[in-house]
Amino acid sequence: MTLDTPPAVVTAGAALFADTLAQQAVEVSPVSWQPPVGDAASVAAVMGDPRRRTANEQALAAMLAAQAHLVDVRPASEALDLDAGQFLHAGPPVDWDAASGPMRGALIGAALFEGLATSPDEAERMLEAGEGVSWAPCHSRGAVGPMAGVITPSMWVFCLRDDSTGHESWCSLNEGLGKVLRYGAYGAEVIERLHWMTDVLGPLLQHAVRAGDPVDIKAIVAQMVQMGDEGHNRNRAGTLMFLREVLPAMIDSGYPTRDVAEAVRFMSSNDHFFLNLVMPACKLQTRAAADIPGSTVVTVMARNGTDFGIQTAGTGDTWFTAPANTPDGLFLGSYGPEDANPDIGDSAITETAGIGGLAMATAPAIVRFVGGSVPDALATTQRMYDITVGENPAFAIPILEFRGTPTGIDVTSVVRSGVLPQINTGMAGRVAGTGQVGAGLVTPPMECFTQALEALAATAQPFSPPGA
Amino acid sequence: MTLDTPPAVVTAGAALFADTLAQQAVEVSPVSWQPPVGDAASVAAVMGDPRRRTANEQALAAMLAAQAHLVDVRPASEALDLDAGQFLHAGPPVDWDAASGPMRGALIGAALFEGLATSPDEAERMLEAGEGVSWAPCHSRGAVGPMAGVITPSMWVFCLRDDSTGHESWCSLNEGLGKVLRYGAYGAEVIERLHWMTDVLGPLLQHAVRAGDPVDIKAIVAQMVQMGDEGHNRNRAGTLMFLREVLPAMIDSGYPTRDVAEAVRFMSSNDHFFLNLVMPACKLQTRAAADIPGSTVVTVMARNGTDFGIQTAGTGDTWFTAPANTPDGLFLGSYGPEDANPDIGDSAITETAGIGGLAMATAPAIVRFVGGSVPDALATTQRMYDITVGENPAFAIPILEFRGTPTGIDVTSVVRSGVLPQINTGMAGRVAGTGQVGAGLVTPPMECFTQALEALAATAQPFSPPGA
Repeated sequence: MTLDTPPAVVTAGAALFADTLAQQAVEVSPVSWQPPVGDAASVAAVMGDPRRRTANEQALAAMLAAQAHLVDVRPASEALDLDAGQFLHAGPPVDWDAASGPMRGALIGAALFEGLATSPDEAERMLEAGEGVSWAPCHSRGAVGPMAGVITPSMWVFCLRDDSTGHESWCSLNEGLGKVLRYGAYGAEVIERLHWMTDVLGPLLQHAVRAGDPVDIKAIVAQMVQMGDEGHNRNRAGTLMFLREVLPAMIDSGYPTRDVAEAVRFMSSNDHFFLNLVMPACKLQTRAAADIPGSTVVTVMARNGTDFGIQTAGTGDTWFTAPANTPDGLFLGSYGPEDANPDIGDSAITETAGIGGLAMATAPAIVRFVGGSVPDALATTQRMYDITVGENPAFAIPILEFRGTPTGIDVTSVVRSGVLPQINTGMAGRVAGTGQVGAGLVTPPMECFTQALEALAATAQPFSPPGA
Repeated sequence: MTLDTPPAVVTAGAALFADTLAQQAVEVSPVSWQPPVGDAASVAAVMGDPRRRTANEQALAAMLAAQAHLVDVRPASEALDLDAGQFLHAGPPVDWDAASGPMRGALIGAALFEGLATSPDEAERMLEAGEGVSWAPCHSRGAVGPMAGVITPSMWVFCLRDDSTGHESWCSLNEGLGKVLRYGAYGAEVIERLHWMTDVLGPLLQHAVRAGDPVDIKAIVAQMVQMGDEGHNRNRAGTLMFLREVLPAMIDSGYPTRDVAEAVRFMSSNDHFFLNLVMPACKLQTRAAADIPGSTVVTVMARNGTDFGIQTAGTGDTWFTAPANTPDGLFLGSYGPEDANPDIGDSAITETAGIGGLAMATAPAIVRFVGGSVPDALATTQRMYDITVGENPAFAIPILEFRGTPTGIDVTSVVRSGVLPQINTGMAGRVAGTGQVGAGLVTPPMECFTQALEALAATAQPFSPPGA
């Protein structure tokens, strides 16, 4: 057989073939394509699951319908039934041997704060031996915690409710920046601040929240994404709008004005205060999509400082874990990359819910905090639409002409495209007791998604052709 | 003479010549160009003024160096030496006969509030006759007022200071939206609110401001333009950041907590509260550039509801006025274009300083309030760089990769390009007593700029060629 015209070849994949043809002066049109990251048979099995499309539609609908009202502020012992010596922490399960510096530091601080030990050394021995203390993931109780995410029985927590499902979620009160427990610091000033938060701030917030209607946190998130906040590393407008909601009742509380003024200063001087309300709101959103057989939507992304773990709607509360990456970003003071701990915290629940790194386009100012450029921020959000099942019209991004945030990360889209969810995050010091060293960008390890794919494939229903 | 190649013609101006050639199959490249709007000889005289370039550089430098700190809150009688019966108002001078409905309504309300009259009819007769009352532009005292902009001796005003020049500026406290004096309403609830503001809000704010360091208003403006506020029709983030500054001292004030809580509710429920601080900050910025011989930079744009007036750096406090346009935008409730009064208020001082309509790109959400699309907002700011002498790095627009706001409107650029400054603004009802009917977009009349050009030409120094 001969060709009537010169050959024109379309190539895909490895460049070897295209290069060989080009060297022979053949016209080549290379197509950008790469094979799926996951096992091809598993991809086919999951993609062919006849439940998948409807299940993912259901998951998206549940996430969009979820509400988030702040209904109470209470001690964790009451709200989460935590007994003395029971702690919660960020990410998937981790034992003392595997725990990173900041996770160990936060657990040491927790033991000191709860009066279980009188020195860091004593606390460390007790934790290592597991004497009178135990810890479990926040997510195992429906709660979330930023960075080390340690919640102890005496700490007060925000209590949020989703009226669309009746679910509740909880998060600790934000301590501020620098030397704080969640970044692994446990010095005297850290413990002292935690006591003030338990003695003054918690009760005052409880009074204010109980005095009024439940505070619509989802509505504040909707407004903040129109004000340059992406809800993970930038919560400036959100914090101010939350303050506006609770202030009049705090002032009217009858508490000493000195305490009220100190609480207002504490909350208003910390642009991240609202993060601890965004997180449980996001948890309620993704939890609404949990336990939908056949759905490939991610419902949890969380890190304990050692491992990154995800959960999906189709696989219940099974963790798919792999070693966490270390963020790449900007450092405080004289800290550098060698000081950074691997990725840590439940705060990636914001990305799981479609904001945070997925909504970088709405927060170009964030690029000055985590590194990168304004066009990068726009491109990041645009790319995230490729790996999500839908958009959230409640969270509209003005500069994208009010397009909704990319929502519902799809395991199959991630493994087929090789595109990983973009997370922006704070960086904890690697050594226990250090505190924050910077902020930056990071992605989950792909292994979390390929493992989830395998588990979804194992329970996939067989493909039945239409009409069969 | 013959051509070696087919003719290729570049045309500019009227299309007649290009059309004729095209009909003869001649290749035509039309260039977009239009003759200057102003008198060509005047344009040439002003452009040739050897002082112009340096004077405009000096004007820009002064505007960028200006500071704005809130140093006090006081009754206007003290701060502005207003005697009983002396009122200030927005825009250039206007007498009763020429005054529009909302300006008359606000003056009637002012007389009622000050106890000079006991009924609107009595107030109107007094104002018409000029018995015991007089009024002058806010700008004539270095003050500014939104919409009708009426300031009376008993009203409390914010006092701002520019440490770079020692200048001060003043503005009334914002009343909120709807039926308010500045939109021309003068019903019982309007007067009652003004009394509460004088009896409670003013003294409380005075206490809070005097208790702390001067509040850096320019710094808040810098942050708000990174949070979706353009500072004219959107002041949501600015209002919240201002509240954060003064709240602790208000709470600590020793005033009854009921009053403090009411004041916090009043301020925090009004997203425009901060406008009345942005405006005097902008006045201080543009005033720093006033009285620079040879400069063609605009230092005031203001409207009294009848006329639009501007002042320039090179022409002192001379007003150049023409009938104000009526904004085009969106209407509240059942109001329509026939209900709208022509453009009114000193709030165009925001555009004079490079924010407001000139910074539309930073506030895409505003387009939902004043009409238009997100690309329109970006294009508007891009166009404004063509008629301004520089950029303000202190007010960086994230989505334009942190480019500074277009700053220093140049009379010569306006008349040469035909491009008018973009203003976005509230719309007052045409009939006295109505209140706000909508919000929209408007431009100044070109006549203000051509008049200013003539005045600048009249005092221009003759062009001297280099080396002459």
